[in-house]
Amino acid sequence: MSKTPNPLRDPRDKRLPRVAGPSVLVLFGVTGDLSRKKLLPAIYDLANRGLLPPGFSLVGFARREWEHQDFRQVAYEAVKAHARTPFREDVWTHLAEGMHFVPGEFSDPGAFDTLAMAVKELDATRGTGGNYAFYLSIPPKFFPEVVEQLQRSGLAQSTPGSWRRVVIEKPFGHDLASARELNNIVHRVFPEESIFRIDHYLGKETVQNILAIRFANTMYEPIWNRSYVDHVQITMAEDIGIGGRAGYYDGIGAARDVIQNHLLQLLALTAMEEPTSFSAEAVRAEKAKVLSSVKLPADLGTATARGQYAAGWQGGDKVVGYLEEEGIPADSRTETYAAVKLEIESRRWAGVPFYLRTGKRLSRRVTEVAMIFQRAPHLPFSHTETEELGQNALVMRVQPDEGITVRFGSKVPGTAMEIRDVNMDFAYGESFTEHSPEAYERLLLDVLVGDPPLFPRQEEVELSWGILDPVEEHWAEHGRPDQYKSGGYGPESADLMMARDGRAWRRL
Amino acid sequence: MSKTPNPLRDPRDKRLPRVAGPSVLVLFGVTGDLSRKKLLPAIYDLANRGLLPPGFSLVGFARREWEHQDFRQVAYEAVKAHARTPFREDVWTHLAEGMHFVPGEFSDPGAFDTLAMAVKELDATRGTGGNYAFYLSIPPKFFPEVVEQLQRSGLAQSTPGSWRRVVIEKPFGHDLASARELNNIVHRVFPEESIFRIDHYLGKETVQNILAIRFANTMYEPIWNRSYVDHVQITMAEDIGIGGRAGYYDGIGAARDVIQNHLLQLLALTAMEEPTSFSAEAVRAEKAKVLSSVKLPADLGTATARGQYAAGWQGGDKVVGYLEEEGIPADSRTETYAAVKLEIESRRWAGVPFYLRTGKRLSRRVTEVAMIFQRAPHLPFSHTETEELGQNALVMRVQPDEGITVRFGSKVPGTAMEIRDVNMDFAYGESFTEHSPEAYERLLLDVLVGDPPLFPRQEEVELSWGILDPVEEHWAEHGRPDQYKSGGYGPESADLMMARDGRAWRRL
Repeated sequence: MSKTPNPLRDPRDKRLPRVAGPSVLVLFGVTGDLSRKKLLPAIYDLANRGLLPPGFSLVGFARREWEHQDFRQVAYEAVKAHARTPFREDVWTHLAEGMHFVPGEFSDPGAFDTLAMAVKELDATRGTGGNYAFYLSIPPKFFPEVVEQLQRSGLAQSTPGSWRRVVIEKPFGHDLASARELNNIVHRVFPEESIFRIDHYLGKETVQNILAIRFANTMYEPIWNRSYVDHVQITMAEDIGIGGRAGYYDGIGAARDVIQNHLLQLLALTAMEEPTSFSAEAVRAEKAKVLSSVKLPADLGTATARGQYAAGWQGGDKVVGYLEEEGIPADSRTETYAAVKLEIESRRWAGVPFYLRTGKRLSRRVTEVAMIFQRAPHLPFSHTETEELGQNALVMRVQPDEGITVRFGSKVPGTAMEIRDVNMDFAYGESFTEHSPEAYERLLLDVLVGDPPLFPRQEEVELSWGILDPVEEHWAEHGRPDQYKSGGYGPESADLMMARDGRAWRRL
Repeated sequence: MSKTPNPLRDPRDKRLPRVAGPSVLVLFGVTGDLSRKKLLPAIYDLANRGLLPPGFSLVGFARREWEHQDFRQVAYEAVKAHARTPFREDVWTHLAEGMHFVPGEFSDPGAFDTLAMAVKELDATRGTGGNYAFYLSIPPKFFPEVVEQLQRSGLAQSTPGSWRRVVIEKPFGHDLASARELNNIVHRVFPEESIFRIDHYLGKETVQNILAIRFANTMYEPIWNRSYVDHVQITMAEDIGIGGRAGYYDGIGAARDVIQNHLLQLLALTAMEEPTSFSAEAVRAEKAKVLSSVKLPADLGTATARGQYAAGWQGGDKVVGYLEEEGIPADSRTETYAAVKLEIESRRWAGVPFYLRTGKRLSRRVTEVAMIFQRAPHLPFSHTETEELGQNALVMRVQPDEGITVRFGSKVPGTAMEIRDVNMDFAYGESFTEHSPEAYERLLLDVLVGDPPLFPRQEEVELSWGILDPVEEHWAEHGRPDQYKSGGYGPESADLMMARDGRAWRRL
C-alpha cells in the first residue's frame, strides 16, 4: 500500500494556516454595498481568525469628507451587521487602529498623492513593507482613470522585495473587444501576475470541492468522460429580480452577467483535465484548454434560449415583470434568462453537450453542476419489461444546500425486481464541524498571500467572451426574449431546446 | 435517447404482483423455532398481501398428538407474535380453514400414507391441483428418511400438469463429500429443478439490491474491477453467542455455518459477470463461474484466521466464553470466528483479494459488502504534502441499517485545500415507503411460484464446500482457535492477517 500524499493540500499550508504577510489593502469604492456587506466583514473575519499580520492596514478611498474615525465607524457597523465570526472587542480595536481614510475624486491627482503619502507612512509606522493591494470595487468605467493615477503617483510600482497587486471585480468588459481594452488598460500599469480578477463564485467551498471530488478520489474520474456521461447541466437560478441594479443590468443581461463568468468557470473546473500541479499557472492552463475547446453549435437559434421575466408571484408576493421594473425601458431586449448548449471538442468530451442556464425570478435559488450519465448501455436481461431505467446523476450542489447528490436505481422493496431511482446525499454542512469561510475571506486572503489559482486570468476572460459573443450577436439580430412567468421555470423555448435533444432540464 | 427496459424487473411481474397458484405447502418440523418465528408468520403475511390463492392449504407434519385445531392454535399464536403485517381476522380465518395437521414419525410409512391421503383430499376439496411443496425444516440427518418416504408414498411424483417441490434448509452437508451425499439422496427422488435450497440471506432486499446496483446503473459497473478496486471485505458479525444451539454448532463452527453459504453467496453476487438474463439458470451460471474461479492462497496459515470467544461483556452483561457454554466440550476446537482471504482468478478480479469474516460475540451485529477502492493512483500535483489520501469505499449494508454508503474525499471547509473522508448515505428504509417483506416471504412465494433465481443450486453448494474444505483440513491439522474477548473485534490473528497485506478490517 503506497502512501499517496494529499494532492490538493495547499503546499504552503504545511498544517499551519496560511497567514498574510505585512501589507496594506487599499479599498476604492469603500462606501458601496459590496464593501459594507462583504469586504469589510471578511477583513474582520480574517483578523479574527488570526490570518492577518499585526501591522495590517486598511485604507479607504472615496468621494466623502470623512475622517479616519468616520470610516472606522462605518466599518464597525458593517462588521457588527455582517461578520461571520463573533465580535471580539480586542480584535476590532487592533484592526481599527490600522484603518485610515483618504478622501478624493478619482480624477484628482492630489488625492492620489495623499494616498501615496498615507501608505508610505503606514510602511514606516506599521511595518507594512511597501506591499499594497488595490481593490477596485468601483464601476469599470473608472478603471482607466484609477490605474493611471496609481501609476502616476508611483503607487503601482513596487520597490525591490515588495509587491503591488490590483483586484478587479467582474464584469470584465461586456464583450471580447471591451474585455481586451480593459485588460490593455490594466496591463499598461500592472503585469498579469499582479492582477486578481474576483469571481466570488470561485471562492465558494463547493466550487473548490469540484477539484477535490475529481482528483482526490478514485471512483469518479473513471466515469468522468464521454463513455459514461450523457450530458452536463450547469444551473444558476435566482428567485430574486434585478433589485436596484437596473442601471447595471439593462443592456448586460443574464448571459453576460452569469454565463460568461460563473457558469463558464464551473464548466472549466468540471471538464478540465488533471493539472500537473495545483499551482495557479497549471490550474489556469487546464481551464484555458477547456475554454478554448468549447464550441457553439452551428444553429444558435435552436442551441440557445432567452427570456424576460413577466409579472407573477414569488414567495407569496405579487411581483412586476422586468419591463415594469423601475429604470428599465419598456422596450428593453435585455434577457433575464439565458440558456446555451455548448460542446467541448476534446477526446474526453466530444459529443457530450454541456447545457448552461441562468435566470432571475425563477421558482427557487439553486446553483449546481449535474453530470447526467447514460442509461444502462444495453439490455442485459431477456424477457424484460419495457419500463425505462432512469439516468444516474452526480450533482455537485454549489448553493444553497452545499453538497453532493448521487441519483441511482435501487430495488424497490417487495417480492418483484422493480427498480426506482433514489438519492444518496452528502451535505457539506452536516459532515464538517468547521464553518465554511465566506468566499470573500478566502479570496482576500489569497490576494494578500499572492495565491492566485482561484482567479481567472486574462486568457480565460477573453476565451469566455469569445464563446459568448456569437450568441449575443445572434440574439441582437433575432427578435427579442420570450416572456416567462415570475416564480416559474423559465421560458418554454428553453424547455423546447432540451426537448429537441430528447432531454429535459432538471426540475428547479 | 433510446429507452432501455428495466433489466431487473421480474418478467412475470408485468406490474401485477406475482401470486402463487393452487398449491399445498407441507411443513415438516412445524413445531420448531423457525416454523414458529419465521415460516408461519411469513405464510400469513403472504396471505394478508393477497399473494396466496384462495384454496391454498398448509399441512403440518410432526411427532405430536395434535388435532388440526391444535396446529391452528399454535400457528395463530405464532402469527400474532411474529407476523409483519397487521392481523386481520378474515384473512386468518380463511387461511386457518386450509390448515391441517398430520401426526407421525419420519420412520412411520403409515403416517406418510395418511399425509398422501390428506393432500389428495385437499386437491379434491380445495382445488390445490396436485401441486405440493415439501418444506424440510428438520435436521439434515432425517433428510434421507423423509425423501424416501415421500417417494414411497407417491408424494414425490407429480402427475401431468402438476408439480412437486422440496425445500431444504442449510446446512447442505458439512463438507464436499457429505454435501454430495446429501445431494445424491435428494436427487434420487427429486430432480434438481424441484429442489429449493433455502439461504434466507439471499431473500433479503439488500442482497438482491446488489444486482440492482450493479446492473441497473451506469456509474458503478465501470469501476467494479481490478483496475479500481483494491480489495473487498465481506462481513457478517453477530453480537450474540451460540444461544441454545450447542448441539448443532459444536463441530460445525463459523466457517461452515456462515462462510460456506451466506458469505460465498454474497461474494458470488458481488463478483459475478452480468448474466445474459435474469432467469434462475443464467444467474446461477454466473455465480457458479465465480465460485469455480475462487482460489485459496497457498499459505493457509497466513490467509486464514479463527477464534473462539472468551468470556467478556456484551451490552452491559457479563457473558461466558464458548468453552463454558452449556453443552460445549471444554476442549472444543470449534471456531466461533473465521476469516479467509480468497482470490478470484478472472480477468476482472485477478489480484484483488476478497476478505471474508464472520464471528459471534463481536461488538455489534452487521452484515455488509465493502468495495475498497485503490488510492488515487498517482501524485498529480507537485509540491504537495505527504499526508495520505483515504481509500474510497462503496459499502452495501445488508443489515441491520439496510442501504448503501459511499466514502470519498471532500475538501474540508477553510482556506486551505485539505481533504477529508466523508460519507454519502442512502438508507433503504428512508427512501421507500414500501415495507420490506421478510426474506422468508419472498422465498416462500418463490417456491410456490416456482421461481428459483435466489436459491443456490447443487453445483454452487459443492463449489463452496470445495473452497472451504482445504481451510477446514488445514485448521484440523494446525493447533486450535485463538481466544478473543466477547464484545470485541475478533482475534488478533485476524487483524494480523490483514496487516500483513498492509490493510485493515473495517471497524465493526
